[in-house]
Amino acid sequence: MYREQIKVLDCTIRDGGLINNHYFTDEFVIAVYKALSQSGIDYMEMGYRASRELSPPTEYGAWKYCDDDKIRQIIDKAQIESNLKLSVMVDSYRVKEQTFAPADQSPIDMIRAATYVKYIDSSIELVNRCHDLGYETTVNIMAISTEIEPDLVEALDQLAKCPVDVVYVVDSFGALYCEQIEYLVKLYRQHLPGKEIGVHCHNNQQLAFANTIAAIIAGINYLDASLYGIGRGAGNCPLELLIEFLKNPKFKVRPLIEAIEEEILPWQEKIDWGYFIPYMVTGVLNQHPRAAMAHMESDNKNKITRFFDQMTNVNELE
Amino acid sequence: MYREQIKVLDCTIRDGGLINNHYFTDEFVIAVYKALSQSGIDYMEMGYRASRELSPPTEYGAWKYCDDDKIRQIIDKAQIESNLKLSVMVDSYRVKEQTFAPADQSPIDMIRAATYVKYIDSSIELVNRCHDLGYETTVNIMAISTEIEPDLVEALDQLAKCPVDVVYVVDSFGALYCEQIEYLVKLYRQHLPGKEIGVHCHNNQQLAFANTIAAIIAGINYLDASLYGIGRGAGNCPLELLIEFLKNPKFKVRPLIEAIEEEILPWQEKIDWGYFIPYMVTGVLNQHPRAAMAHMESDNKNKITRFFDQMTNVNELE
Repeated sequence: MYREQIKVLDCTIRDGGLINNHYFTDEFVIAVYKALSQSGIDYMEMGYRASRELSPPTEYGAWKYCDDDKIRQIIDKAQIESNLKLSVMVDSYRVKEQTFAPADQSPIDMIRAATYVKYIDSSIELVNRCHDLGYETTVNIMAISTEIEPDLVEALDQLAKCPVDVVYVVDSFGALYCEQIEYLVKLYRQHLPGKEIGVHCHNNQQLAFANTIAAIIAGINYLDASLYGIGRGAGNCPLELLIEFLKNPKFKVRPLIEAIEEEILPWQEKIDWGYFIPYMVTGVLNQHPRAAMAHMESDNKNKITRFFDQMTNVNELE
Repeated sequence: MYREQIKVLDCTIRDGGLINNHYFTDEFVIAVYKALSQSGIDYMEMGYRASRELSPPTEYGAWKYCDDDKIRQIIDKAQIESNLKLSVMVDSYRVKEQTFAPADQSPIDMIRAATYVKYIDSSIELVNRCHDLGYETTVNIMAISTEIEPDLVEALDQLAKCPVDVVYVVDSFGALYCEQIEYLVKLYRQHLPGKEIGVHCHNNQQLAFANTIAAIIAGINYLDASLYGIGRGAGNCPLELLIEFLKNPKFKVRPLIEAIEEEILPWQEKIDWGYFIPYMVTGVLNQHPRAAMAHMESDNKNKITRFFDQMTNVNELE
């Protein structure tokens, strides 16, 4: 599948940071930055630009805040020619004292507003502000698999009137099948004329990559993925698989494989992400993975029948 | 997705047996038999009916041969009411002294002939023989992703004229994308009027489940899967995911989860199957996973860049 307009965004540091409270070392972030640059990936998401008032630095690492200076340090230390654009995510409903320099004075190129349907106004406010500062902007509406359609459509219609560049179909719970992704892409395209559409999938049912392909075929151009699928819970669409699928000669897969070997496999010894039955269960139930994450961190991680029974109230899912 | 004609075949013991030379204990096979019976799965594949002359019993466990008496022992010991039909696979091009009792004197319901395009005649011979003995029959043409279309079509046209019940689309190398599966299903349907079509996928690119869904939507009714995806290399379509997708009330997922907890997770501590970069690489290259399997069994399992370079002759895949 080759389509020139396709842009790939790596969310290794941002979504992966949800596993370790954003405490990645500079060395890790630099290695990922280098690998993505060498691979020709379009965007790298460095983390969140969160409020220090709402999320105190005693609890989180540097990539929860993504200060411009911190990002500049990484770029300086990487010492590599790079066309990689950088993005940060902001929870639009948790904006407090966060400030943004004008885009031409910041290493950040794109601000991505994560939101829920009910907070759509806050994302539009954030988009307006960041757009005026010169940033590319996206809105990523989370948990849409639990929204009724008129509410979602109303949100999309509002976004259509704001200057946002890209609106993402987000399968937060890894609950959706390909057909449903196709349906949602069609809905987004219909209500967002002239906007780019993106997709961000989770792997609870081993469908993150397949759903990303389905979205591409349905015409979307902005694709989220992460190295070896690293990310919260079941993780994301694996970047290396996506790059092989895209068959765009500008992308190289070897630097990604190298980064997986050197940087990601060691993480696998410390943390479980990917396909595990508890994540499958929350995915199938269309629920937030938090119960599955708690189960996976407990001493009873392999007691999956007990978890299934708890989540389904003994028999509901049978 | 609910369609009454859909039949699910579990290949845990057969494809899983490729990892351990078919040395599963009776207790393991009984536990799987019970779980599948309780879940309402349609078929259980017990293993191969191989030739003892060509594959000596010094090298393989009981499930390489699947003697009728051995299977009867399992059924007797399981002591459970069961509608499960049983199948065995036969490599049609390695038939020597293997014999088959008339179906009404055997615990086996279905014989599945595995073959390559070039050995299609041997599969037809086997089908004829087994059909006359009263068995349901299938032909599973392997490695079709490396065949040119006229050869494949010729094989299908021959099969159309024989009494085989089901012909399988087999993605032996985990190389195919959904679109390609859809294309092949269409081709098979066109050339096999009145026959049922099946699908057997491998998970090298995390697409086994998605490709199975694609095949279902394209109209096929016979689906292979295994508990937690256990199988050679990257493994198969996970049965528990498939059952949740099918939404047929005759299927229950809880007994599968229990069997995964008690029987399959312990195997995971001994053997790696599923998504690993070496399997991804052979999948993308449309090659047999044997090089990846050798790499995964070596002491350098995590030296994935070296494996990538070897397989791609340094740069071909970049």
